[in-house]
Amino acid sequence: MRSASYGERNLEEIHERESHLKIERIETDYYRLPLEPMGDAGHGAIDTEELITLSLHAEGLTGHGYTYTIGRGGRAVKALIDHDIAPLISGQDAAQIQAIWDLMWQRLLYVGRGGLASFAIAAVDVALWDLYGVREEKPLYALLGAEARDLPAYGSGVDLPKPLDGLLAQTEGFLERGFPGVKVKIGRPDPTEDEQRIRAVRELIGDGVDLMVDANMAWTTDEALERGRRLEEYGLYWYEEPTIPEDVAGHARLAREMDVPIAVGESLHSPHEFRRYVEEEAAAVLQIDPITNGGITASLEALKMADEAGLKTSSHYTDELSAHLLCASENPVYLEKHAFALDEYLQEPQRVVNGHVRPTETSGTGLRFDAERLAPYAAG
Amino acid sequence: MRSASYGERNLEEIHERESHLKIERIETDYYRLPLEPMGDAGHGAIDTEELITLSLHAEGLTGHGYTYTIGRGGRAVKALIDHDIAPLISGQDAAQIQAIWDLMWQRLLYVGRGGLASFAIAAVDVALWDLYGVREEKPLYALLGAEARDLPAYGSGVDLPKPLDGLLAQTEGFLERGFPGVKVKIGRPDPTEDEQRIRAVRELIGDGVDLMVDANMAWTTDEALERGRRLEEYGLYWYEEPTIPEDVAGHARLAREMDVPIAVGESLHSPHEFRRYVEEEAAAVLQIDPITNGGITASLEALKMADEAGLKTSSHYTDELSAHLLCASENPVYLEKHAFALDEYLQEPQRVVNGHVRPTETSGTGLRFDAERLAPYAAG
Repeated sequence: MRSASYGERNLEEIHERESHLKIERIETDYYRLPLEPMGDAGHGAIDTEELITLSLHAEGLTGHGYTYTIGRGGRAVKALIDHDIAPLISGQDAAQIQAIWDLMWQRLLYVGRGGLASFAIAAVDVALWDLYGVREEKPLYALLGAEARDLPAYGSGVDLPKPLDGLLAQTEGFLERGFPGVKVKIGRPDPTEDEQRIRAVRELIGDGVDLMVDANMAWTTDEALERGRRLEEYGLYWYEEPTIPEDVAGHARLAREMDVPIAVGESLHSPHEFRRYVEEEAAAVLQIDPITNGGITASLEALKMADEAGLKTSSHYTDELSAHLLCASENPVYLEKHAFALDEYLQEPQRVVNGHVRPTETSGTGLRFDAERLAPYAAG
Repeated sequence: MRSASYGERNLEEIHERESHLKIERIETDYYRLPLEPMGDAGHGAIDTEELITLSLHAEGLTGHGYTYTIGRGGRAVKALIDHDIAPLISGQDAAQIQAIWDLMWQRLLYVGRGGLASFAIAAVDVALWDLYGVREEKPLYALLGAEARDLPAYGSGVDLPKPLDGLLAQTEGFLERGFPGVKVKIGRPDPTEDEQRIRAVRELIGDGVDLMVDANMAWTTDEALERGRRLEEYGLYWYEEPTIPEDVAGHARLAREMDVPIAVGESLHSPHEFRRYVEEEAAAVLQIDPITNGGITASLEALKMADEAGLKTSSHYTDELSAHLLCASENPVYLEKHAFALDEYLQEPQRVVNGHVRPTETSGTGLRFDAERLAPYAAG
């Protein structure tokens, strides 16, 4: 762990500076988006995505952000933004994105240090980056100093409860969309079922398509080693979240003792958490979700760590934001096309061409919700 | 890190069992309690405590719990309990406290793993233990298998902004109450000020009273080492939160290189976080706050870790609950009498006799708020 403090110096700067782009107002809306019932080994059954949209107004300009949950905690995230973050950053300079991130982190520290607070910070941070792009008339990837590129995408199911024929039908759909990789959930109580499913998917996709597996923290390290070894012969591209995120030493052991690369990230809620995995050589692929990791600002820090350590990067959900972020990475192997998709609620859904995606060219994040399509799902 | 999973087996049990003490209703109320303005190096200025009280009704019995923040996040904590936890555990068996804890942890996992979620889980868990005590007609310490004892208490200021004369007046107050120990905040920008203040306090209290210092995560490890060494000559009982809680290796280095014992705990939000400090030998004193650490259930686990590793234990705030918890510890060195106190809102404030406290003998936690005294501070 690098010796670090929480950046109090940044806070001093923000208060000394004259505000040039004063934050005037922050508005949030809460939606409950129905999902086809699905599930995984770690989070159980999932049938709703909570979506909180955010608009941040500063000197006549508006930045748009959002955050999400997989069904619980969304109203708490909204309450944290409305009652605590909005009054805190109102009047601050929207151009000082890093300083505002530090301010939110510090002032929410007592109930924060990741977890739910990171989901709230993310919504504001995404809006600040969007506003920055709108102001500079540049797409997000360009603000990050990157060039647009084609990113390979993989089809990702949340399919643990699906019977085998449903799993194979889903996989066929991924192949039809031209994805060069597909991911399957594992963690059925009976190990032979996991093995049958992975074997059947490998037979269907052939050797030319990458196959990832995701255990969603189901096991102890010993179990993860045993369960993972049964699957190695099927040629896995990565083995995701084999055990709980707190057990970094366990991940490091799996990374040492197994041939398959270990992937983690969606459960890490700050650059500090990513740093542990990098420093303890506990993962080969960092999957960076700018919502669960506290925003674009925090995710850039995680990307930079990956570059410095020579690790591969990928994304988690957040398909649209991640297309920008991964362009700023040295070794982005895959963007996840998630089983949840915001497509039907977006003005411009992300296009997949030959199994690849590109970042948008609009100023800012390019992510704009269609208010009419969201309206039926507004909730109190 | 011990190889671990999140206890899915417990969840299977809870669903198979017939519920004997069905949870029928959970009610919460939100209060903003004014504090004399105070502050520390990590959290900045503090002038409000948020209090969320909780009552849990099951088969004609009621358990009482609460949770708190130091001014931000309270409405989000309440929203998490009302909208997510209450529907989740409604109908479950209130006697299955560990299983309900596991259920809350798992189902809030995506936005959880500590942080704000632990503050919400704590309120319910405290109420479940209270209900258990009410039902068994035993005080909490007895439910924990402990015997009541006199616990030495220390006077604790949140006094970084206080001028020196105010700091000394506060210390005199602590001496008048007979406390065998006092704690002072450090982390003023100018190191000589910290030193002057600590020297003056030591001169006032003499050698017979223990003196703790608390940096509230102000520094990098290098700074913490330099700043701490300037103070060692004043005979410190412990050096609290010298750097950020994520930097366990930094704490371990300080523990190795300094003579003063390192103390941590209030910023750790799960037994997993405590375990890292224990396994990496990064602290000599664990300060366990049953609210910030996710309840009595989680705190018992941290106490057990301390016992197994031969570490000392102390508390953080939560004076009333901690008097029970510390009785269940093998080496409880001090209970903190915090600058915040719930005394004026309690039916029976904790009594300090010769600088010592004892747990209550009433059934359950013994903690009952006085509704009339809280009423003026109710907020929407």
